[in-house]
Amino acid sequence: MAGRIMPKVRFLPDDVWVDVPEGETVSEAAGRAGIILNSACGGAGTCGKCIVRLIEGTAPPDESTTRGLSEEEIEEGYRLACRVRVLGDAAFMVPHGSRFYEQQVLTDGIAPSVKGPRPNVRQYFLELPPPSLEDQRSDIDRLSDALLGKAPPSVEAGLEETRELSEALHADSFRVTVTLVGSAIARVQPGDARGSCFGLAFDIGTTTVVGYLADVSTGKDLGRASRSNPQAVFGQDVLSRARHAAQSPDGLWDLQERIVSCLQDLGEELARKAGIGLDRIYEIVTAGNTIMTHLFLGLNPRHIAQVPFTPVIRRGFSAAAADVGLRYSGRARLFTMPCVAGYVGGDITAGMVATRLDRREKLTLFIDIGTNGEIVLAEGGKLLACAAPAGPAFEGARISCGMRAELGAIDRVRFDGEEIRISTIGGRPPRGICGTGLIDAVRCLLDLGAVEPAGRMERPDGLPPKVAGRMREGKGGLEFVLVGREATEDRRRDIVITQRDVRELQLAKGAIRSGVDTAMAIWGASVRDLDRVLLAGGFGNYIDRRSALAIGMLPEDLPVEKIEFVGNSAGMGARAALLDVGARDLAEELAARTQYVELSGRPDFSDAFMAAMVFPERR
Amino acid sequence: MAGRIMPKVRFLPDDVWVDVPEGETVSEAAGRAGIILNSACGGAGTCGKCIVRLIEGTAPPDESTTRGLSEEEIEEGYRLACRVRVLGDAAFMVPHGSRFYEQQVLTDGIAPSVKGPRPNVRQYFLELPPPSLEDQRSDIDRLSDALLGKAPPSVEAGLEETRELSEALHADSFRVTVTLVGSAIARVQPGDARGSCFGLAFDIGTTTVVGYLADVSTGKDLGRASRSNPQAVFGQDVLSRARHAAQSPDGLWDLQERIVSCLQDLGEELARKAGIGLDRIYEIVTAGNTIMTHLFLGLNPRHIAQVPFTPVIRRGFSAAAADVGLRYSGRARLFTMPCVAGYVGGDITAGMVATRLDRREKLTLFIDIGTNGEIVLAEGGKLLACAAPAGPAFEGARISCGMRAELGAIDRVRFDGEEIRISTIGGRPPRGICGTGLIDAVRCLLDLGAVEPAGRMERPDGLPPKVAGRMREGKGGLEFVLVGREATEDRRRDIVITQRDVRELQLAKGAIRSGVDTAMAIWGASVRDLDRVLLAGGFGNYIDRRSALAIGMLPEDLPVEKIEFVGNSAGMGARAALLDVGARDLAEELAARTQYVELSGRPDFSDAFMAAMVFPERR
Repeated sequence: MAGRIMPKVRFLPDDVWVDVPEGETVSEAAGRAGIILNSACGGAGTCGKCIVRLIEGTAPPDESTTRGLSEEEIEEGYRLACRVRVLGDAAFMVPHGSRFYEQQVLTDGIAPSVKGPRPNVRQYFLELPPPSLEDQRSDIDRLSDALLGKAPPSVEAGLEETRELSEALHADSFRVTVTLVGSAIARVQPGDARGSCFGLAFDIGTTTVVGYLADVSTGKDLGRASRSNPQAVFGQDVLSRARHAAQSPDGLWDLQERIVSCLQDLGEELARKAGIGLDRIYEIVTAGNTIMTHLFLGLNPRHIAQVPFTPVIRRGFSAAAADVGLRYSGRARLFTMPCVAGYVGGDITAGMVATRLDRREKLTLFIDIGTNGEIVLAEGGKLLACAAPAGPAFEGARISCGMRAELGAIDRVRFDGEEIRISTIGGRPPRGICGTGLIDAVRCLLDLGAVEPAGRMERPDGLPPKVAGRMREGKGGLEFVLVGREATEDRRRDIVITQRDVRELQLAKGAIRSGVDTAMAIWGASVRDLDRVLLAGGFGNYIDRRSALAIGMLPEDLPVEKIEFVGNSAGMGARAALLDVGARDLAEELAARTQYVELSGRPDFSDAFMAAMVFPERR
Repeated sequence: MAGRIMPKVRFLPDDVWVDVPEGETVSEAAGRAGIILNSACGGAGTCGKCIVRLIEGTAPPDESTTRGLSEEEIEEGYRLACRVRVLGDAAFMVPHGSRFYEQQVLTDGIAPSVKGPRPNVRQYFLELPPPSLEDQRSDIDRLSDALLGKAPPSVEAGLEETRELSEALHADSFRVTVTLVGSAIARVQPGDARGSCFGLAFDIGTTTVVGYLADVSTGKDLGRASRSNPQAVFGQDVLSRARHAAQSPDGLWDLQERIVSCLQDLGEELARKAGIGLDRIYEIVTAGNTIMTHLFLGLNPRHIAQVPFTPVIRRGFSAAAADVGLRYSGRARLFTMPCVAGYVGGDITAGMVATRLDRREKLTLFIDIGTNGEIVLAEGGKLLACAAPAGPAFEGARISCGMRAELGAIDRVRFDGEEIRISTIGGRPPRGICGTGLIDAVRCLLDLGAVEPAGRMERPDGLPPKVAGRMREGKGGLEFVLVGREATEDRRRDIVITQRDVRELQLAKGAIRSGVDTAMAIWGASVRDLDRVLLAGGFGNYIDRRSALAIGMLPEDLPVEKIEFVGNSAGMGARAALLDVGARDLAEELAARTQYVELSGRPDFSDAFMAAMVFPERR
């Protein structure tokens, strides 16, 4: 069954495609796509806040859906996303009002005295009284007086803008269009030159960079695109890049220039597709982990990489986009999302904003799993964060047949009672195994008794014959053949799980789990108290929740329904901050308010780590 | 008696030399040198606040001086500057406490809650707690936390400075020296690198630019130097320069680059003489008229030059010094003194600050005479300003034998009862006549009856024979020969005063006088109400007060003792603003608070102008 393709679900107007395991709810699928829907009733189908509209494919309404919607609505394709399951390829339209962030933050959130979002880029067409002998105000005073009450308390103009504004004022009888970025006059044009202003949000991941183009006046999404982070040539993980920056004379600039060109290229690609000029892009917001943020700004992250892990900056940083080398509007500004600490970065803060962790009234656990697992606990506005060093196993590194989650990677492994079944990304002939596949595979081996709770592989009695035939003695002890070489892409070697692979997974999942356990212990909560577990980021988004529980990466007594995918919450949070300065203030506040616990060197973390490496007993 | 040299008086520690008419008080002489002394008693010799010390030359104490000072003090050379007259060359030391501005503004002035001046550049040596697992604050937070309470409420760091600071912090165990310019971190150096920080103040005159170098930490004066304004190649007066900027494609930049190189050269000269590095100059403050300020910043002044005379900016402008092309410390900031209106500029605001016009409890008239005469009336904090278009006559232009106040210019003319006596600048053979000489000459002719009150030249009966012999019929009517060609420098032509010259003077002095009269009328005051008239600027500084009264440039019934010279008050005000941000705030406040009256197009001004062209009757 190698290469079975999961249903593809498309969400509009975002125009994002995701592969979704059959049977997942549309809410969950939307989460994988980074679209977080309202769920005031927690998926019970009673609040009616997650309405979507089926455009293509099938999605039969269940009973509660019919209860919440009129017959006409159901005929027109309206569904409650939390109650409809993905059965095959489908396309859904997600109305503005169903989006969690938009409704909670952009409309009625954050700054109670302000109606609606507060974009940082604003444009005004002004018809100013022309000067006379009775009114000899300077050009700039005439302009700022007219902006009083409309714009921030006081607007500023740099030298270049001041030079420009006089000409613009006099060119068309003091009718001008002013573009403000924050409180700074970015552009003054004669006459009514109003038009859309654009901005870019970036999720700068260690592996992948995602860019979002939006009309910052209307909030309209104008596309998204992604690229591999080109810094990878200097190391797959953040630490090797930090080392390169610290040790090589031009190391920092090698890395800085690469990430800046990546953001430039992505932005240009998005602008080209949307048919807009680069000079109308006035704002860039980035969310990245602390080391990515430092490298992007050209700040040396060397001290984050060593005890006691201190960054150069923690707060959100604002600068002229040109100062880092980005070439959009000459006056474009840049904002990097604030970090919590050296290993809980702006991507996590963005995630807290996107999921409004501060508003969760019941205990919520947010986990972003990657080379590091960042963990945030939230309840009633209280926030606690820590980072667990998972290592690169989930990204396929140090695994004998490991690979990244690319085409041909085995991403799902199941035991159907008789035989092991796999699927690969894109349905291609298998080339190796990625993190989700490894977790699935070990889960099967645990279920079959071929891996003991302590992690030792063994050949138990009563193994189904087909499975037993896959076990063999390798160089490093027992190993399990997932795919024989004849079925692999290059037909050169078998894809196996070795004893050492199992040990690597124990280290990785043990780190995450011990981080969760230590955070919960500090909080004084037990698994029973958890209302919800939010899985963020690319890896978290594709993990099989039951496998994550079965290997004990997450507490095994956690009900699976409590686990939610929140998609690329870093990108969503950055996008929110691009469209609303209130979201930036919120990010700054949450980052400062979050209690950070340094796990490194804590004796209780070491103990928890030892305990967490053990797999749960078979149920 | 051509070329008689006036006594030279030197003031220390400023090290300024001035030529002083014999018999003037040392207070007045200090005013000519731009050093304004206290005079709480108005020169009665009773308050004892203007003590100076005679270092060289003679200055016999008068009775009131002996009353105010002890015998020992008098032996040591101490004198009351208001009661000692200049009899010949001399040198005086001016103690800090005798300076008007320093005592009134820098020490107990402006911001009652702040003790002493508030320099904008500050340096701190900090020993920060090194980071640990318990204290993982970012480098910049560690630094700003340590500055809390010492520095402005919140310090900012640009990208470059942020890049620099981490290295500096870690280089010497978190012992660092921070230099702040305003609230911006300008420099972070490892260890205790404290040293003096320097700044430059400039008076950007249309004709002459004066630069002052000071240690901004201590306020110590480190020298002054002056140059001709190199923009003069594009016109002697502001209007022809504004035209050049408006009409020629690169006109603005021609002018901008010239004034910037002038400031750069002056600053480099001053730094070289003081033996300091350019990279330690962190602040530049300029005072110039509104057009000069625009040209310096690269703002096109074309609309100041035409009705309704609106500037691009009026307020003080702050920018990176590098943005206008100045090359001092890479992080040096620039501040241009705020203007009142298109024709009452930052030089006048600086003068208001230097003379604390806002604190004058009795009606005070401040006049800066040049191509334009700027006039400010002040009493009890109320301020009213206007500008009168005097034209270039005072600078020697459009006068048949006119010249600027340069070597060889006739600057004084007297009638000794028998004959006309002249003196020239530098005692050189006469080359022409400058503004002060022209005023003196016409005063003599008025006294002799050779010029009628209406301005017509005539040959009255009973003229002393030597004077009568100087009158002759020229091409344009009667003319008066001041110096025969054989006594001139080039022996090529006589130096004469023509009927037309008298008419030009009438226009110039009439403009000033009508400005004064209109301002007084708007204020509702008469000459009797005037407590003091302050003459500022180069021309005002060298004028003969009695001549100014005799030709009616100032109200003829004004007692001569009420006229004071305040020297280069623009430069002094700029210097005060360099050393004290309180003085900048004051300047901003005074400029905004001053009621500006536009004389152009006012019928009462036209009427006053007609009346003011008439000379006073002989007394």
